[in-house]
Amino acid sequence: MNRRSFLRHSAAFAALPILRPESDRVFVPGMQPAPLRVNGARLNGWLAGFDRIGRTAGGINRVAYSEADLAGRAFTLDLFREAGLTPRVDTAGNIFGRIDGTDRSLRPILIGSHVDSVTDGGNFDGPVGSFGALEVAHSLREQAVRLRHPLDVVVWSNEEGGTIGSKCAIGYLKPADLDKVARSGKTIREGIGLVGGDVARLSEAVLKKGDLACYIELHIEQGGLLEKAGLQIGVVEGIVGLRWFEITITGFSNHAGTTPMDQRQDAMLAAAKFTVAVNEAVRGVPGRTVATVGRVTVTPNTTNVIPGQVVLTVDLRDLDAAKVEQFTQRFEQLGREIGAATRTTFAFSRTVDSAPAISDQKVMTWIDGAARSLGLTRQRMPSGAGHDAQEIAHIASMAMIFVPSVGGISHSPREFTKPEDVVNGANVLLNAVVAADR
Amino acid sequence: MNRRSFLRHSAAFAALPILRPESDRVFVPGMQPAPLRVNGARLNGWLAGFDRIGRTAGGINRVAYSEADLAGRAFTLDLFREAGLTPRVDTAGNIFGRIDGTDRSLRPILIGSHVDSVTDGGNFDGPVGSFGALEVAHSLREQAVRLRHPLDVVVWSNEEGGTIGSKCAIGYLKPADLDKVARSGKTIREGIGLVGGDVARLSEAVLKKGDLACYIELHIEQGGLLEKAGLQIGVVEGIVGLRWFEITITGFSNHAGTTPMDQRQDAMLAAAKFTVAVNEAVRGVPGRTVATVGRVTVTPNTTNVIPGQVVLTVDLRDLDAAKVEQFTQRFEQLGREIGAATRTTFAFSRTVDSAPAISDQKVMTWIDGAARSLGLTRQRMPSGAGHDAQEIAHIASMAMIFVPSVGGISHSPREFTKPEDVVNGANVLLNAVVAADR
Repeated sequence: MNRRSFLRHSAAFAALPILRPESDRVFVPGMQPAPLRVNGARLNGWLAGFDRIGRTAGGINRVAYSEADLAGRAFTLDLFREAGLTPRVDTAGNIFGRIDGTDRSLRPILIGSHVDSVTDGGNFDGPVGSFGALEVAHSLREQAVRLRHPLDVVVWSNEEGGTIGSKCAIGYLKPADLDKVARSGKTIREGIGLVGGDVARLSEAVLKKGDLACYIELHIEQGGLLEKAGLQIGVVEGIVGLRWFEITITGFSNHAGTTPMDQRQDAMLAAAKFTVAVNEAVRGVPGRTVATVGRVTVTPNTTNVIPGQVVLTVDLRDLDAAKVEQFTQRFEQLGREIGAATRTTFAFSRTVDSAPAISDQKVMTWIDGAARSLGLTRQRMPSGAGHDAQEIAHIASMAMIFVPSVGGISHSPREFTKPEDVVNGANVLLNAVVAADR
Repeated sequence: MNRRSFLRHSAAFAALPILRPESDRVFVPGMQPAPLRVNGARLNGWLAGFDRIGRTAGGINRVAYSEADLAGRAFTLDLFREAGLTPRVDTAGNIFGRIDGTDRSLRPILIGSHVDSVTDGGNFDGPVGSFGALEVAHSLREQAVRLRHPLDVVVWSNEEGGTIGSKCAIGYLKPADLDKVARSGKTIREGIGLVGGDVARLSEAVLKKGDLACYIELHIEQGGLLEKAGLQIGVVEGIVGLRWFEITITGFSNHAGTTPMDQRQDAMLAAAKFTVAVNEAVRGVPGRTVATVGRVTVTPNTTNVIPGQVVLTVDLRDLDAAKVEQFTQRFEQLGREIGAATRTTFAFSRTVDSAPAISDQKVMTWIDGAARSLGLTRQRMPSGAGHDAQEIAHIASMAMIFVPSVGGISHSPREFTKPEDVVNGANVLLNAVVAADR
């Protein structure tokens, strides 16, 4: 356990006022009721306790299927029980728990997130939404609020490794993916077994279109837009489409001292021109498109040799599929132009290609109304990061609730969301669920 | 042994006419004598035989102090003996052999090169000049040409690791350098012992100013200037000054999906702008300056993370020390400008800094005259690559003879110099030595 970190978080949430359960509330049809509120101190206490698990000098390390992930899941299973839900692990390793509704004909409202982390990550990406959903269920029971719909809380397995649990839940995981090696060093096949799933019966984990009333996921923003705008809640309009390119630029390695500047086929110079051109292309068009050259591998990568080959990646994202396609064509054109100018060749391959997942207008309205009733400032915004919600969007209406990340930092030990923002997010989730239930 | 390669070389030099030794030549003072000629078939035969040593699937691997280097040196010692020279290994591991002159008051003329290679290199960088020098000595003895000066043939040790043997020979190797690890995995201290030197007595290997009449080194060009100009001989005006920079660009790692384009501190974008700007700066000024970004290390080097740090190298060379200084200042200015524009910081360090070594006019005239007497086309040119001659320039008049590299390729298994060009180079060396002796 990282004691300093525990104390920091403890001190932060201890300063919050204790919110009293309002179990005596009465719902009067036609009148706007006062919003429900979760027990914020309890929720932040869970997060502070969870911070002990998988914390190393480099940050939180609860990568899926690791010892720390198993410990994190055990902690989470206890929270299901504490919230009064009987946890069930499906054959994909996802954890579900239900509060029955009053109307047996209605399909369940699903809420939740994940608890696994990236390497050297933080304690908020995933747990805020998972524990937030558990706190919503806990509060509803505690405050004796009965919903008409069943309420299912889910904690998806291995989100950070490519939304594996939620992909299984919609039947989208390819059999070949089972043999891929996760960050823990274990294959996904081994990992699913370790967390209590059963790869031989994966089909039993599949949810079909129409199985759910809707899906709502609370998550930290992982960007700086809310903080910069001074807003408390993001109503997520959708999860951007993502296309990854791996581009191999081939020139010719030669002696850095003896080859005149005008006789070179310098793959690094071509890569540099391309990196600048991709950035200028995206910034030159209004909108929220992002494109990143994140990985660059130079061969032979020696001070006194002109690079003969560079392999680089471009990560391209936009909520608008047409824009993703438009920039794809622009990048390929840039490759041809820069290749001709530098006597190199550009070969493009697409390693990831996921379509945008658009939020449901109705679900967004519930979230928006919940935030309004709580007096919270808010804006609609896309999610630039991937989430389990993008998978569930294939089979159900969904939307997400974002709360601010301090400094826009995520996937980092410096990732932090203020306790009051965690509580705001859970309160919005609670009231959005109530709105969805009406 | 790579049999295909051996056959290729054998076939190439077997096609040459056999040159007969002209031992009956008579020198008539005041008359321009016919030029001497080496035994070209023998010289190319040595090179073909040497191609068996250290050849792997990746190319020639005779990195200094390796098993293959030791085998290459044993082969070379045999050639000293075949040429009628008694080899002597100095305390730095350099191999020397002498033909006495007729005038005991004169200082020796020194000729030679090296036989170690880079990783995955070729068979011509070094051996052409080493064996060329041995063939010159062999031909002089065979043709009964007595020089007034002693003629010393030298094969320097560990040229590719930073002209270590020749640095020792001028007393420039720093004691700390002895503990550096060479490409073979051995320290220079261990390596010098392995090749027959004695680090405790390194001072005995030092040549002082005035110890030599002059130094002439034959070498392959390692560039494409001669081939492109259709010329046979390069008369090297000097070895360019070389400055290596290691530049650390620091931005801030963040999520590639959630961080808007205008809120990034992208170290890779800064590195790309800098790489393009360095290229444009050098190409924008007339002359033969070269600058190369050869090594690029990106952190964290992950597709979906904005790079937080890039370390890159610049290799800058010019024969004119003022230009090296001028471009140093320009690059540092570019770093400041691009850093400010991209919200990154540039930190420069110089890892190598060697001043230009200017050839001696008199020695160049001898080389020029030798090429002219042989009817060979030629031009004066700088050497963009470093050579042992740049060290010896500190204590003696020197110049170098270049012969063309096919395609300008070197430090590559595709490195190749045509047998007739090898012979041309050795003939020029032979007649330059005779001119120096007059």
